[in-house]
Amino acid sequence: MTVETLRWRNNQLEMIDQRCLPSVIQFLPCSDAQTVAEGIKQMVVRGAPAIGVAAAYGVALEAQKLASLPREDFVERMARAFDVLAASRPTAVNLFWALKRMRIRFYEHSKNENLFVARLLLDEAHAIYHEDIETNKRMGVFGASILDDGMCILTHCNAGALATAGHGTALGVIRSAVAEGKKITVFADETRPFLQGARLTAWELSEDGIDTTLITDNMAGHFMKSGEIDAVIVGTDRIAANGDVANKIGTYMVAVLAKEHNIPVYVACPLSTIDLSIPSGDDIPIEERSSSEVTGYGDIQWAPENIKVRNPSFDITPASLITALITEQGIVYAPNKKKLEALF
Amino acid sequence: MTVETLRWRNNQLEMIDQRCLPSVIQFLPCSDAQTVAEGIKQMVVRGAPAIGVAAAYGVALEAQKLASLPREDFVERMARAFDVLAASRPTAVNLFWALKRMRIRFYEHSKNENLFVARLLLDEAHAIYHEDIETNKRMGVFGASILDDGMCILTHCNAGALATAGHGTALGVIRSAVAEGKKITVFADETRPFLQGARLTAWELSEDGIDTTLITDNMAGHFMKSGEIDAVIVGTDRIAANGDVANKIGTYMVAVLAKEHNIPVYVACPLSTIDLSIPSGDDIPIEERSSSEVTGYGDIQWAPENIKVRNPSFDITPASLITALITEQGIVYAPNKKKLEALF
Repeated sequence: MTVETLRWRNNQLEMIDQRCLPSVIQFLPCSDAQTVAEGIKQMVVRGAPAIGVAAAYGVALEAQKLASLPREDFVERMARAFDVLAASRPTAVNLFWALKRMRIRFYEHSKNENLFVARLLLDEAHAIYHEDIETNKRMGVFGASILDDGMCILTHCNAGALATAGHGTALGVIRSAVAEGKKITVFADETRPFLQGARLTAWELSEDGIDTTLITDNMAGHFMKSGEIDAVIVGTDRIAANGDVANKIGTYMVAVLAKEHNIPVYVACPLSTIDLSIPSGDDIPIEERSSSEVTGYGDIQWAPENIKVRNPSFDITPASLITALITEQGIVYAPNKKKLEALF
Repeated sequence: MTVETLRWRNNQLEMIDQRCLPSVIQFLPCSDAQTVAEGIKQMVVRGAPAIGVAAAYGVALEAQKLASLPREDFVERMARAFDVLAASRPTAVNLFWALKRMRIRFYEHSKNENLFVARLLLDEAHAIYHEDIETNKRMGVFGASILDDGMCILTHCNAGALATAGHGTALGVIRSAVAEGKKITVFADETRPFLQGARLTAWELSEDGIDTTLITDNMAGHFMKSGEIDAVIVGTDRIAANGDVANKIGTYMVAVLAKEHNIPVYVACPLSTIDLSIPSGDDIPIEERSSSEVTGYGDIQWAPENIKVRNPSFDITPASLITALITEQGIVYAPNKKKLEALF
């Protein structure tokens, strides 16, 4: 299977609607920045690298749409589009990384004709898309080298093809190990409340024929204790300069449990996810989403009316609980500020 | 609010159907052991003490139903009823404790007329019911004495009025503390897959006006790290002789997280939950339930078709992670074999 998370068709971006997977496979067509931003906000597309790629296309689409405007209006409305996209979600840094790259491209060439600029921006979005897949494949090779034949991997949330332009970060490592002929089995945490594990990871891995077992999040400790899990591999939405990792809510729980059982915790992260401007995890903004995600699923509400809810979408795992980062430049054991700075 | 988990009406047992709570409040009438056993198996009634009480009524109902049979048939079919009830769920020991008590009563008087025996068995079931509430209130008083005004308690699953004949074990402690005038707030883990926390704990506590916040199970670590949780209180389905605790899947996760954050873990348990015949938690049978509980909710399936699933309903928390047991005879700090034996 090749999952098409994002695809460029007829001068539009099409996003697979991840809210309906795996039961319904449908694509949302986007022809401007606003639609892309709304798609990110509503989690039509999610996963830090995929959000970055989508935002880049959002900029390109907006430029295409506005190209016939007078220069001043074009520049002003493009600036607004950048702002709208930047406000779509706060935690994943790839969004801001991709927008920064697009903004540099935009201002570099802002003296040129609008149509020319629009074409350059689309080329840049395509480049970000293809580089993301290449990056994931390089991470995959490095990551696969530290996995042994027969290992059982626990993963949390979805850091797969669906979270990226393709191949995946954490799941890319697993895919690469399997491609090398290693027998790898996977436990997938269902990852409440949005169920990325149950809906997305379970789906994309089993479509690829990788032996995957779905569990609820609260079973991870039980299966670590029973000796059935050999390693944890997750993705990340942002890594601070000191190596603290922001990732899907529950990652911290998994990391504490892994420490209790002497199980290594690997974080697959492209360099675009490392944010040296932020000293520690305490400084990473944590998005709180709607209570309706917690009180039920879809149209069903199972919790009592008016119950108070907390719904942080991410948590921070301190660097001390991370065995190694898997990057496209190699494995970084016991990550810290010095080692992260050396990557750039 | 007085939640009526189990009630005796018109010579029948009525169980509130906990599968539909809180959206629908309806009672399942039971007039024989088979219906009670099926109600336990299907989780119409759940919670270790409530299962014990229900099973006792199941025996009494069967005796009432069979009283007109010849003596030999009566005795033989009653033996079958005990077996059917004992096979309904494997982990909670209160079931076997209550059946043992009913069996002693039955054989003590098996020389008497069937109708007389049936009446004695009903009296015994009523006694077990009322003793359960009294036990919970005594535990409540002891438990409340170790909670401070202003504390925020994390609880997992439902060890409330709905898990017992009334008042609750873990939630009974919270209720008693609140009744003493202490301001106690609660975080309730939703407790996948059956959502006892979201559906039952959130409901019965908010009906009582106790300040309750619902979270997904994988958020517990995050809120411990942020300093918002002062203590953990849970119930239990069986405690082995060495103090190991079987309880709802995820309890072990909560206990490991609590250790990481120096947060005390209290287990509210009537003595009927302590099983001295079982040396350690490794010997407690862990029920695995249907995969459909994990792949979706109600009629909705969100996971892909044919995905492999594991669904252990309980896990074992080693005694070393338990700060204290709260029993009807007092608080047992750092539980071990010697201290548990001394309770009997």
